[in-house]
Amino acid sequence: MHFKVISRVLGVLLMVFSLTLMPPVAVSLWFNDHNYFAFLIAFLITFVTGFIIWLPVYNTRHDLNTRDGFLITALFWFVLGLFGALPFVFSSAPHLSITDAMFESLSGLTTTGATVITGLDYLPESILYYRQQLQWLGGIGIIVIAVAILPMLGIGGMQLYRAETPGPVKDSKLTPRITETAKALFLVYLKLTLLCAACYWAAGMSVFDAICHAYSTIAIGGFSTHDASIGFFESNAIMAVCIFFMIVSGINFALHFFAWRERTLSHYWSDPELSFYVRVIALGTIITVSYLSYTQTYGFSTAFWHGSFELVSILTTTGFGVADFSIWPAFLPFLLFMLAFMGGCAGSTGGGMKVIRVMLICKQGMREIHRLIHPNAIMPIKIGKRSVADRVVEAVWGFFAVYVISFMVMFMLLLATGLDFITAFSAIGATINNLGPGLGDVTLHYGDINPTAKWILCFSMLLGRLEVFTLLVLFTPMFWQR
Amino acid sequence: MHFKVISRVLGVLLMVFSLTLMPPVAVSLWFNDHNYFAFLIAFLITFVTGFIIWLPVYNTRHDLNTRDGFLITALFWFVLGLFGALPFVFSSAPHLSITDAMFESLSGLTTTGATVITGLDYLPESILYYRQQLQWLGGIGIIVIAVAILPMLGIGGMQLYRAETPGPVKDSKLTPRITETAKALFLVYLKLTLLCAACYWAAGMSVFDAICHAYSTIAIGGFSTHDASIGFFESNAIMAVCIFFMIVSGINFALHFFAWRERTLSHYWSDPELSFYVRVIALGTIITVSYLSYTQTYGFSTAFWHGSFELVSILTTTGFGVADFSIWPAFLPFLLFMLAFMGGCAGSTGGGMKVIRVMLICKQGMREIHRLIHPNAIMPIKIGKRSVADRVVEAVWGFFAVYVISFMVMFMLLLATGLDFITAFSAIGATINNLGPGLGDVTLHYGDINPTAKWILCFSMLLGRLEVFTLLVLFTPMFWQR
Ligand SMILES: [K+]
Ligand SMILES: [K+]
Repeated sequence: MHFKVISRVLGVLLMVFSLTLMPPVAVSLWFNDHNYFAFLIAFLITFVTGFIIWLPVYNTRHDLNTRDGFLITALFWFVLGLFGALPFVFSSAPHLSITDAMFESLSGLTTTGATVITGLDYLPESILYYRQQLQWLGGIGIIVIAVAILPMLGIGGMQLYRAETPGPVKDSKLTPRITETAKALFLVYLKLTLLCAACYWAAGMSVFDAICHAYSTIAIGGFSTHDASIGFFESNAIMAVCIFFMIVSGINFALHFFAWRERTLSHYWSDPELSFYVRVIALGTIITVSYLSYTQTYGFSTAFWHGSFELVSILTTTGFGVADFSIWPAFLPFLLFMLAFMGGCAGSTGGGMKVIRVMLICKQGMREIHRLIHPNAIMPIKIGKRSVADRVVEAVWGFFAVYVISFMVMFMLLLATGLDFITAFSAIGATINNLGPGLGDVTLHYGDINPTAKWILCFSMLLGRLEVFTLLVLFTPMFWQR
Repeated sequence: MHFKVISRVLGVLLMVFSLTLMPPVAVSLWFNDHNYFAFLIAFLITFVTGFIIWLPVYNTRHDLNTRDGFLITALFWFVLGLFGALPFVFSSAPHLSITDAMFESLSGLTTTGATVITGLDYLPESILYYRQQLQWLGGIGIIVIAVAILPMLGIGGMQLYRAETPGPVKDSKLTPRITETAKALFLVYLKLTLLCAACYWAAGMSVFDAICHAYSTIAIGGFSTHDASIGFFESNAIMAVCIFFMIVSGINFALHFFAWRERTLSHYWSDPELSFYVRVIALGTIITVSYLSYTQTYGFSTAFWHGSFELVSILTTTGFGVADFSIWPAFLPFLLFMLAFMGGCAGSTGGGMKVIRVMLICKQGMREIHRLIHPNAIMPIKIGKRSVADRVVEAVWGFFAVYVISFMVMFMLLLATGLDFITAFSAIGATINNLGPGLGDVTLHYGDINPTAKWILCFSMLLGRLEVFTLLVLFTPMFWQR
């Protein structure tokens, strides 16, 4: 482990992050909401801490190895979550406890979008803007890490993407690759955000709301500036824009990058993961809208808009709302909730286990059934025309098992803190999948549950965002040996 | 597919099964409960049907292949479930609908032990005896199939046991192997049942209750002759006997066979699956008893007896009860319920996914985490000192995925029939794991849920008992080709 280099990276990271506390100051002054002081203090603390960490090691140079990659990735979210919580603590409205501030901050950065705050419509604009910006920053972090770092670390089958990463590929060293890739992806991310904001504005949002919601849409975050979320606007045009950009943000950003660079849509058509993702969305929408109409929960028009919006929002793990899907009839709430376990494509800002893994799991299940009938046949698992290495399939299984086991353990811990079955079940599902809203007591917000439960959920958000393994590996003795 | 031979096997099976309707007639006459006529009619219908199926093909001789094995195994449970339901339909008390009778019969034969009947204490003795005997017959069927047939079919990693099966091993032909193995295992099973009955009687049960409960204990069935189940007897001695024999019945019967034949306990000590099973039981008991004491749910003595009894009963998927564990505090009901997903050892009468598969899943999860740190190290998965083939590990993963996916699909179907979340969740868990009692509306019995739900649960019981794949493979077009 190269602790000096890791310190340098973290120091720089904190100093850069501290700069992101300046836009909220500007927003505060623009709207004159008397809250700029909270951000200034937070800026000072963050910058100075970063500087103090960075100074003693500023001229250390060393290539990072895989272990350093794990540690930096995990620390990235944890440390930013910690310092990102400062404005919530210093702000006068809302004035959050340490636990609540950390929850809100981590929920923002991991693009989970679970909130402990109510009465959003009455908060200072700077705080509202800051929450949205946290998600946006988290989103770009996720994409860079998912496309550039995770394939190299070999998390749960993501070696698959090693060859497809944009930018120069050097397997043994992280640094040059991250920089190139980060630049390329950041531009795509920025352009998509601007386009989304423009569309929201054209569809009728104020400039402030358009920017804020573009942030949390492209990041698949789900934070809103209104308690009623997207439902606040009561506009089909806004819903349509939102649905479109949620689907787009759930796609592998490497595909967007290629499409942009080569000015062609051909990469989209030929991607098997995208095709699976689109078909699941289409099928899910048909089932949801039909069942809502059939049970006369809504008239057809409302069933169509609410059904497709909620399906896309939950499946992509965005978590925006226009209707309370938790009271929809029979299996619909659970169906939507289960689809969030799939989530977005790998290399997107979406949460969940990722489409590609679910595809591989289904294909392996089918293969095992076919193998029973033809025990000696050789049946490679294929994604598109490419055979998938056994090693990758094993890694995906490992991922699935550890995901399920982690879910169970945290679920039982939540039950032990006194939450009821549905609240605990959905809260873990909503956080490990980085979805946001749950069912039961956490349908609307997470403010009323006990502090211990909130910390468990913080861990769950991190676990999901770090693809489980990146975090768990730090708890093995083997990681720290030698 | 050799349909003629399959018909002959089924014909013989039905004729043999019809004979098992005679002991209830004897019980009816002995207790003079005026119910013998129901069994006589059922006997006639079953025997004649079997004879009609058998007669045209009685001199067909042909070796069975693997596909025939799948079909016969699936039909074994389905056909016996169908004809086993007859006495419930013809009996005056209880007079069950076709749905309820089929549910009760399948629940008995698959040793699930979920019941639609209440007021057991007032039923004719012959019906009570018949339910217990159904479980006992199902139990021996399971063991023979699990030890002799499934390893050959290669269901979910059970090739592991191919070399360990008692009796002569011939991989390509089923017939001689089944006969030898069945005889050997039947004797072990019978001796254990007699021993268990004797212990129950010595501990204070009536002869009738002792025999009846020995049947359902050794079969890990969970049916009782009293609504209050084992709690009816209010006896620590009986609880102790029950706990011991539930644990024993959850062990691979091949181990019992070797121990008996070679007059040694050494096979027990050296079996890694058994060691894991015992350790999970010990750990689970400690957690359960401590938490019950700590929360002052019971005093220590009651916490000890009720805690260890319910843990063993649910973990082994027996489903006997002495206390309503569904109202125990916090995570305990869910913990017990989750342990039922593990269930007994392979080759036992227990349900669930089986200990060996859970072991392999945990080991693979650990291996994937270690592989992240040492990507190029070769790390074979070992059970005891033996390396497990990759093919077996893949099969176990396939099993796990299909198990979870089947669970989800059936769960949503149940929700669609109108059951609430906990009832639906636990009902599927209790049936696919062949456990019996659920939570919510199915804590006490399954009588009040809608008929559609009952049929879904029948399918779920079959699915669990047939190790999922044996049933699902019949629904693939590939199975029926050529
Ligand atoms: K989200
Ligand atoms: K049972």
